[in-house]
Amino acid sequence: MKTACLIIIGNEILSGRTQDKNLAWLAQQLNSQGVRLMESRIIPDIEEVIIKTVNECRARFDVVFTTGGIGPTHDDITSGCIAKAFGAKLIRHPEAEAILRRHYTPEQINEARLKMADIPQGASLVLNPVSAAPGFKMQNVYVFAGVPSIMQAMFANMRHELGEGKPMQSRTVSAFATEGTIAGELAAIQSRYPEIEIGSYPFFKNGRLGTSLVCRGLDDASLSAAGNEVRALLVKYGEIAEGME
Amino acid sequence: MKTACLIIIGNEILSGRTQDKNLAWLAQQLNSQGVRLMESRIIPDIEEVIIKTVNECRARFDVVFTTGGIGPTHDDITSGCIAKAFGAKLIRHPEAEAILRRHYTPEQINEARLKMADIPQGASLVLNPVSAAPGFKMQNVYVFAGVPSIMQAMFANMRHELGEGKPMQSRTVSAFATEGTIAGELAAIQSRYPEIEIGSYPFFKNGRLGTSLVCRGLDDASLSAAGNEVRALLVKYGEIAEGME
Repeated sequence: MKTACLIIIGNEILSGRTQDKNLAWLAQQLNSQGVRLMESRIIPDIEEVIIKTVNECRARFDVVFTTGGIGPTHDDITSGCIAKAFGAKLIRHPEAEAILRRHYTPEQINEARLKMADIPQGASLVLNPVSAAPGFKMQNVYVFAGVPSIMQAMFANMRHELGEGKPMQSRTVSAFATEGTIAGELAAIQSRYPEIEIGSYPFFKNGRLGTSLVCRGLDDASLSAAGNEVRALLVKYGEIAEGME
Repeated sequence: MKTACLIIIGNEILSGRTQDKNLAWLAQQLNSQGVRLMESRIIPDIEEVIIKTVNECRARFDVVFTTGGIGPTHDDITSGCIAKAFGAKLIRHPEAEAILRRHYTPEQINEARLKMADIPQGASLVLNPVSAAPGFKMQNVYVFAGVPSIMQAMFANMRHELGEGKPMQSRTVSAFATEGTIAGELAAIQSRYPEIEIGSYPFFKNGRLGTSLVCRGLDDASLSAAGNEVRALLVKYGEIAEGME
């Protein structure tokens, strides 16, 4: 599978002010394209950190996404940092400028808003019908807005570029059985299905402790066989909990 | 300020199955201790990745926290990885074992549950009254559970070790004014207060677009002065939005 990394740029996430909502959404969308999100980094609005992180991640993963920092205010420094990371000039992109000039009235257009048309030389635009200001793609790095509705619109406009890999399939079974009780037999199932990843996640529901077991894999037959064994294990030790997918 | 990094370990976060809730909580708690969360990494349950990430982060930040992967099942590999990251042996800690043997009945105790007493040689326990199984501290790395209630109980038992630095103070003002309108004057305020971080965050409320401006800093007088200028700027361009802190 193709690998991806998400770099979440923003002091507001690291201060606890804002709860990120992009990672979970993007992870699921990427999976449906057959791309696996392998890592995410949440970093502050500090130029050296952004440059270093982008350069580390673009070398290690097939595709990198960044969210945040491409608006009109002084703390929006992502585009300039991406340019520096690639050793490229930051240029005012004519098409991006034209888009902004069409979107805003002559009274609204100002230097701060036009700054949103500045992208690294060699990058291509990723259009955004929600708020007009485009994201962009520089080699294997996609630079998106942090606002979820805008990020999602940008993703919709580039997802076809990811190709159509086989999505990871998953099967989840949950029961009121504790992890410690089933762990030994579960490990034995895992060792019989090395191509399937089995994750075990405890939960509380209606005051009762339980475990969700998630099998993930690319091969339908293995997934089905492992899922059946996992289900039989849970049935043996506890009552199946419905609605815990 | 002391710096911190949070390493979130778990395939379930990266697949989008589970929304992380530990980062925002921990960030706020750390701030109240005068410690600043500078970075977070979300990584999969893969031994080499965990070891490499822990070693990179413990060298770069004053304190590192990990969440996830210290339960009884086969996919709980964090403790062993931390031992390898430090080149330490993984040992069955006598006090941790005693805690588990008191917590579980003789019928419940088994090798999977006792595995939760295995920690790197030289580490000290971080107790957990919620589910008994302890976390631990190895040099500047704190290893916590991923379940929020358990993670929070562990943090409560070690937060005094962080000392009492001065917390970052913040002041937020929100108004129905767009970022692009205020950006130029806001940048001028920022340049007059380099010791204050001013963040600008757009929002939608009742179908109207607005901006929250957050001033953060350690010096009360500067924060107050910058906050007043920011408020005056917003009053000039839009109606103040209450309840958007």
